[in-house]
Parts: sequence; C-alpha cells; structure tokens
Amino acid sequence: MPGKAHVTIQDIARKAGVGVGTVSRVLNDAPNVNPQTRQLVQAIMAEVGYRPRTAAQTLRTHKTHEIGFITDEIASTPFAVDVIRGAQDAAWAHGKILILINTNRNPDVLHAALETMLERQVEGIIYAAMFHQPVQLPITVCELPAVLVDCYVEDRTLPSVVPDEVTAGRLATATLIERGHRRIGFINNNEATPAAVGRLAGYRQALAEAGIPFDPLLLCPEASDPDGGYRSVQRLRQQPDPPTAIFCFNDRMAMGAYAALRDLKLAIPHDVAVLGFDNQEIIAANLRPGLTTMQLPHYAMGQWAIQYLVGEASEAENSHPPQVQLACPLVLRESV
Amino acid sequence: MPGKAHVTIQDIARKAGVGVGTVSRVLNDAPNVNPQTRQLVQAIMAEVGYRPRTAAQTLRTHKTHEIGFITDEIASTPFAVDVIRGAQDAAWAHGKILILINTNRNPDVLHAALETMLERQVEGIIYAAMFHQPVQLPITVCELPAVLVDCYVEDRTLPSVVPDEVTAGRLATATLIERGHRRIGFINNNEATPAAVGRLAGYRQALAEAGIPFDPLLLCPEASDPDGGYRSVQRLRQQPDPPTAIFCFNDRMAMGAYAALRDLKLAIPHDVAVLGFDNQEIIAANLRPGLTTMQLPHYAMGQWAIQYLVGEASEAENSHPPQVQLACPLVLRESV
Repeated sequence: MPGKAHVTIQDIARKAGVGVGTVSRVLNDAPNVNPQTRQLVQAIMAEVGYRPRTAAQTLRTHKTHEIGFITDEIASTPFAVDVIRGAQDAAWAHGKILILINTNRNPDVLHAALETMLERQVEGIIYAAMFHQPVQLPITVCELPAVLVDCYVEDRTLPSVVPDEVTAGRLATATLIERGHRRIGFINNNEATPAAVGRLAGYRQALAEAGIPFDPLLLCPEASDPDGGYRSVQRLRQQPDPPTAIFCFNDRMAMGAYAALRDLKLAIPHDVAVLGFDNQEIIAANLRPGLTTMQLPHYAMGQWAIQYLVGEASEAENSHPPQVQLACPLVLRESV
Repeated sequence: MPGKAHVTIQDIARKAGVGVGTVSRVLNDAPNVNPQTRQLVQAIMAEVGYRPRTAAQTLRTHKTHEIGFITDEIASTPFAVDVIRGAQDAAWAHGKILILINTNRNPDVLHAALETMLERQVEGIIYAAMFHQPVQLPITVCELPAVLVDCYVEDRTLPSVVPDEVTAGRLATATLIERGHRRIGFINNNEATPAAVGRLAGYRQALAEAGIPFDPLLLCPEASDPDGGYRSVQRLRQQPDPPTAIFCFNDRMAMGAYAALRDLKLAIPHDVAVLGFDNQEIIAANLRPGLTTMQLPHYAMGQWAIQYLVGEASEAENSHPPQVQLACPLVLRESV
C-alpha cells in the first residue's frame, strides 16, 4: 500500500501512549477526557505539526472533485447497488466523481481503502453497508468528512442515513388492516437486526392504533429465505384461527409463502393476502399475482449522502451529526 | 475535473492534424500508417517530449498499487457484480487495491473516469460491461495497460476476456440430448448479441453431433424476461410434435417457462425438462424443482483480468493481444 506522507491520528496516539479514541475526543473537544491527557495530546500535536485533515483541506485551493465510496459487500443483496447508483448520479450532478472501493468485509482492505482515500485527498467519504446495521470503523474515517449509509455507529458521532423501519412496518400492517384483515401474521427475520426490531415495533404500533390485540402466535421469526417463508406459512395456517394476511420480512420469504399457499390450495389475495419487503424487482414483479411490497430507499440514501457531503442536504433532524431516516414507500401490486 | 498535468495522445493528434487512432497506431508500431505521417507524429512526440504513459510508468520506482475498474452499469444484472468480487479478491491477493468507477452508460462520466485514473496513475485499467457485447472506448484507454471484461473492441486491439458462449450452448443442449431428448426447444433472446448468436451456434452444433436435424419451429426468439419465456412455452407446446425439453436463454425466461408449464399441468422434469442460463441464485436455487442452468464465469473473468494486468495470466490463446474465452460450467439441479 502507498507510503504515508502525513502524520496520522494513530501516530499521535502512539506517541502519547493513549488510544486513538482519546485523540479523536481531544480533536473534537469532547468533554470526557482527563485534562492532563488532553494537554499531553495537544502538546504532541503541536510538536509534530499535526492538523486534522478536514481543517487542512478547507485551506486547500485545489479540490480533487473526488468522493470516496466504500462498501462492505457488493454482491450479497443485489438490489442494494441502487445506493451506488443514487450516489453516482448525485455526485455527477455536482461535478464530482465517485471512487468506489469494495472491502468484501476484509478489515485489511478497509484500512487500505481509507488510507488510499486519505492519500488521494478525496473530498469526502461515504461508507455503505449492504443492510441496515450498526458498524465499527477505523478512527481514520474521522480525518475526512464522512457519512454512513444504511448503517450507523453506536455512539452516533458520525452522520448517517438509514431506512425508517418502524414507519415502514406500521405502514405495511396498516395497509392490511385497511383491507379488512384483523388476523395478520408477521414472518420476521430471526436475528435482532435494526430491520427486524424496527418493523416488529411498527407492526405492533399499527395493531394498537386499530385496537387489535397483539397475538404472539401470529409471529414467526425465521431464516430470511424462501424456505423460512414456506415453513412459516405452514405453521401459521395450522392454527385454529389462522391469519388471513401475512406480512413478510422480505420478498424472498414472500416467495416461499406463495409456494406454501399454492400447496395449501389457497388463492392470493382471495384467501390470504401477502405483503413483502424490499421490492426486489426480479421477485416482486414476476410472482403471480404481483407482490405488494415495501421499497427500501437505497437510491435516495445514496443521493442524500452526496447532498450531505456537498452541503446541500436538507437535514431532517436537528441533531448533530444528523441521523436521518428515509421513508420506505409502499409498492402496490395484486397480492393484497 | 482535475487539470491535465501531462501531454496526451490527443495533444499529439491535434498538433499533427491526424486522428488519435493514427497516433495510437504509430505508438503501437502498427503497419497501416503512411510513412510520412508516421515520421510527422514521431517528430512531434519527440518535440513535446511525449512518452507513452505505460513506458513512463515502468520507469517509476513509486507504484500506486491501484488498479482502476470501470463498469458501464452496475445495477442492471445484479449477478454480474461477481466480476467485481473476482477482480477485488485477485487484486488484494497481489497487494493491489481496486478503484471502481461506475459510468451508468454516460460517456461524459466515462471520459472523466479515464482522465481521473490517468491522473491518479493507476497501474492498469479493467473495463467491464455488464453483459457480453462489443464496445467502443475513448482512445485514452490505450495510455495505460487495459483489459476488457465481458466485452471486446471490434478490431481486437485490446485484450479481452468473455464467456465461451458457443461451447456453453453446445454443452447445455448435449446435456438434454444425453437425457434422451430429441425434440429440444430453444427460447433465445431476440437480439443479435454475442450471447444469443453464440449459444444458437452451440445448440446447432450439439444437434448436428447427435444427428438430430435442426427444426426452426423449435426456435423462439423472444424478449429475455419471464413473460417472453411464458409466451414461448405456450407457442412451443401448441405444435403437433412439441418439445420434451426446453433450453432457455436465461433463468428469467426459465422462470416464465415454469409458470407456463404449471398452467399447462405439465410436470418438470417428468413431462418437460427445462435448462436455464446465468445461475442467477435467487431464481435458479429457489424455483421448484431447482433449475439446472449454466453458470456465467463472472468471478473467473474478474480474476483473469487482474492476473493479466499483473503479468500472471496463463494466456489461453497465442493471439496478441489475447482474446480469451472462459468456460461456463453446468450447474445440475432437478429440472432435467
């Protein structure tokens, strides 16, 4: 990898005998630093002539017009490449070119990617996860303006844009309630991801708003693939008072739900309504009947990230750094 | 975009009053250049101190360890991102980092992408199309070692790696013949792409090798989506001597073929065998029964491109620049 041409936050930390987190807190004037440590770190920064890269960059007249885009994985959820398309289109509209590096979840590649982008003096960095999740990132990401897409850091010290899972879960469930359903099954992912937790909260909100008691028997946490959907429908339909509508965590599970309902000789939506999530075109548009589903705002998240970096984002929240949640629109087809 | 810091092939062409193609031919010692023009171009290159970037780079001691990867489109065929994974893994194994720029088929972005990569002095460029096709590229691509993936230039002046469509079509058809089928329908794409033309040639070769006469009635050129597959099966099965096996141009068409056969109350593979193309996991693995299909060598093509750039490719052909075709393996599931 390219040799370092500058003093990094790591160098300061090493010299001071503290963690990079501490150096970062000193740089950001955070309160939770021992005053003596703060003095020591500041003294070392002065000694080696360290300037935080972001500040140094605002002094430059020569801009690179490049924005770095780092993905953790590019192939696992194909529809998520819409994030790249959204960022690409917005970047180009602002005369910036998007430089992508895909890490394939390899931490060494991630470090090298950040180092490369710092060396190249990109104007900002987008870090995108391929599904909504908390992430941990090397502190070097703080040396440039950075924004997180479909992920966030637990301490919320970096700006992020993610889907509004709760509202989406509520809207999906309310859609089924509006069609007259009172027994609504929810085939959820069996991992405690922000998507699974958020959509379940939204499902419960919609039921509560309609005065429908929550019935844990209608909940199926499962592997989020077609087999998981298939098994869940079999289980749900064996109940004495089976659901007449099923909300699935994703379109792949809905695909399995379709197969199970077909095998049970139940018609969609006449006997049982099905509602998916993701609007994964290849499934949702091609199932018969077409699958009503929720659209993840991948394109819009990519777009927002660029707008934030170029200083044009209309910040939906007053928090700083902003933690933005974008709406997931309902895509109506024939399955509800 | 960044200002130019070097004399380009375009500058030489302008000064000499010739096209960049001519300058490129002089640089590559190609025979088809008027001797006087050759002298003029060489004189101008000497005058301005032009050195082809590739030669200049071998003189450098400082390598960037970066390889540029330009895609025409990243989102249209999601499974094609395997090219990126293959290139990424191979690049990292050689201590190189892969810098991606996606052009979304915008020629201005393509020009800017090439310019950016030249400025950044990447060590080589991969240009990848998202389906097998001939391409036209700005001549600047010749200023660096370049390799084309899933595409080629008509005059074959740049190295390329593509799927072996003919052999794949032959293998698919021979697989059905081995299972005892003599009436084999081919639902092909209705555009004269290398994939459609090559696979048809392979289909005819396999029939000829088995002594089965080619019957144009068994050929259905159609839109390469599920509806195209659905319509084709209806048409094929209305014939007096309908096919007992169907080879589909892609898995999406096979998905439509499944739906049509189900509506005709025909069992797969008992009544009609179905064989797809692409091994698009979400379809092929999830259809019931699982779809037997041909795997496109996306990962291997990405890998080969890097191996070529770092000088480690075992060149399958003696032509220079190499035009390599990689095999498409058969993926057996339950549909044949």
